[in-house]
Amino acid sequence: MTTIKELSERIHEFCKERNWDKYHSPKNLAMSVAIEAGELMEHFQWIESNEAFDHGKKNSSEISDEIADVAIYLFDLARTLEIDLGNAITKKMKKNAIKYPA
Amino acid sequence: MTTIKELSERIHEFCKERNWDKYHSPKNLAMSVAIEAGELMEHFQWIESNEAFDHGKKNSSEISDEIADVAIYLFDLARTLEIDLGNAITKKMKKNAIKYPA
Amino acid sequence: MTTIKELSERIHEFCKERNWDKYHSPKNLAMSVAIEAGELMEHFQWIESNEAFDHGKKNSSEISDEIADVAIYLFDLARTLEIDLGNAITKKMKKNAIKYPA
Amino acid sequence: MTTIKELSERIHEFCKERNWDKYHSPKNLAMSVAIEAGELMEHFQWIESNEAFDHGKKNSSEISDEIADVAIYLFDLARTLEIDLGNAITKKMKKNAIKYPA
Repeated sequence: MTTIKELSERIHEFCKERNWDKYHSPKNLAMSVAIEAGELMEHFQWIESNEAFDHGKKNSSEISDEIADVAIYLFDLARTLEIDLGNAITKKMKKNAIKYPA
Repeated sequence: MTTIKELSERIHEFCKERNWDKYHSPKNLAMSVAIEAGELMEHFQWIESNEAFDHGKKNSSEISDEIADVAIYLFDLARTLEIDLGNAITKKMKKNAIKYPA
Repeated sequence: MTTIKELSERIHEFCKERNWDKYHSPKNLAMSVAIEAGELMEHFQWIESNEAFDHGKKNSSEISDEIADVAIYLFDLARTLEIDLGNAITKKMKKNAIKYPA
Repeated sequence: MTTIKELSERIHEFCKERNWDKYHSPKNLAMSVAIEAGELMEHFQWIESNEAFDHGKKNSSEISDEIADVAIYLFDLARTLEIDLGNAITKKMKKNAIKYPA
């Protein structure tokens, strides 16, 4: 079972090998997350909500790549800012549980 | 060390308890990823790239919450479409390694 | 000098001729604005702010098309909701003038 | 009838009076368009396409402001890059007419 930390380290290694660190400022990485989120959304642009699951399953391979692209930039942004993404999610879900009681 | 799968299951549990599943179509979740990505980007809107790291560290708590919000919807989208996010990232990085040789 | 109203009508005519009205719900048009905004942003993803003007001038034709894509969906969204975009901008700028005094 | 050019000039005047020009690089303006597009989309996040028109009419005032925000940054971006937005739209629609014959 791969952890977020392991994946983040592999992503960082990949970027260092290509000398991309200088481009990967938090500003540019946040932009990149949003750009990839737009490409992900494109798959569901003209699809109704109730068709979206079937459409998603049929185009699973392309959508999987788009989801991965968002995740790669998001994990790299968190690492760059020394934010532990697993902890961040756990902390945010505790806030959500208070804001939206079951 | 928390895995993506464990976090995804906790997110799904949280949504089921609130009866949110009916709203969480892949279309709406993809929109939600993009909406939260916009909020994350807002923190770096008027900041230069070379100021972005210091700015990010100073506002680490708010930015950590925004990163978590993107991740929560992204993990939930992957789970909804029965996509293993860890595998998706690994697969995409192999493609990236071919596209961008070191 | 072309007005927003004239352009909006031409855009609507274009969509009606292609029987696209059924897809152009305000929800889908708002998504489309965001998707095209992501593509526009892509042109400036790895560029520093101080390089962005020169980069923009050099790639003026492609960027012009992306700006147009955002505008086309935005104008169509406003028309669909019977919002007069010129008035909306004027009204919003009055609010901005109060919020941010010169 | 207000033209795009008149509105763009008013927006530019507004920014100059507040000494905002230094922040309004094409990179930052493209980000701003995408950020505001995300806020606009938020109004339709959990709404079905067939409910979106009624929802849009009921929340017309807030949505009108969000549409204006996207337009203000978009018009300013075009002006900054010396792109005539009216021409850009006309040119792009000619391309679209070839790509998607009626």
